[in-house]
Amino acid sequence: MARFMDVHSGFIGVTAHQLKEAHERDLAIEGDEGVHFEHAWLDPERGKVFCLATGPSREAVMRIHKRAGHPTNEVYELQIEV
Amino acid sequence: MARFMDVHSGFIGVTAHQLKEAHERDLAIEGDEGVHFEHAWLDPERGKVFCLATGPSREAVMRIHKRAGHPTNEVYELQIEV
Repeated sequence: MARFMDVHSGFIGVTAHQLKEAHERDLAIEGDEGVHFEHAWLDPERGKVFCLATGPSREAVMRIHKRAGHPTNEVYELQIEV
Repeated sequence: MARFMDVHSGFIGVTAHQLKEAHERDLAIEGDEGVHFEHAWLDPERGKVFCLATGPSREAVMRIHKRAGHPTNEVYELQIEV
């Protein structure tokens, strides 16, 4: 199991409620791919979302986000952390 | 006190030891600006580093990273998290 950070752009003005709803759409289906989204952070002024996840592959993370309605190709495998 | 995510590019092939050294250079001076770098994650294949920090402003985070030798303008204020 690896750890991933993915980045979404264009989420300007998104509210806490909307972020929670989007995150819950991931959580509802993440088990299908063995993914778990641990945390999501939003900068609503710059429209950036960062999601920290574990899972078997970048592609699995991308498939869940795509099915949940917020696709991104920006998924990084975090091989090293301090 | 706010929370921030910053992003560095071009760190391809950086090792765990090098990331730790870079992170320690931040930790050594972060108190000067009231910043604290909580965590850093690296994707060495794509050369991306993500740092999670707390501090008084984006500019304070940028000043510490610049003095520590790894400047970035990509600093996001994480007003919302789930």
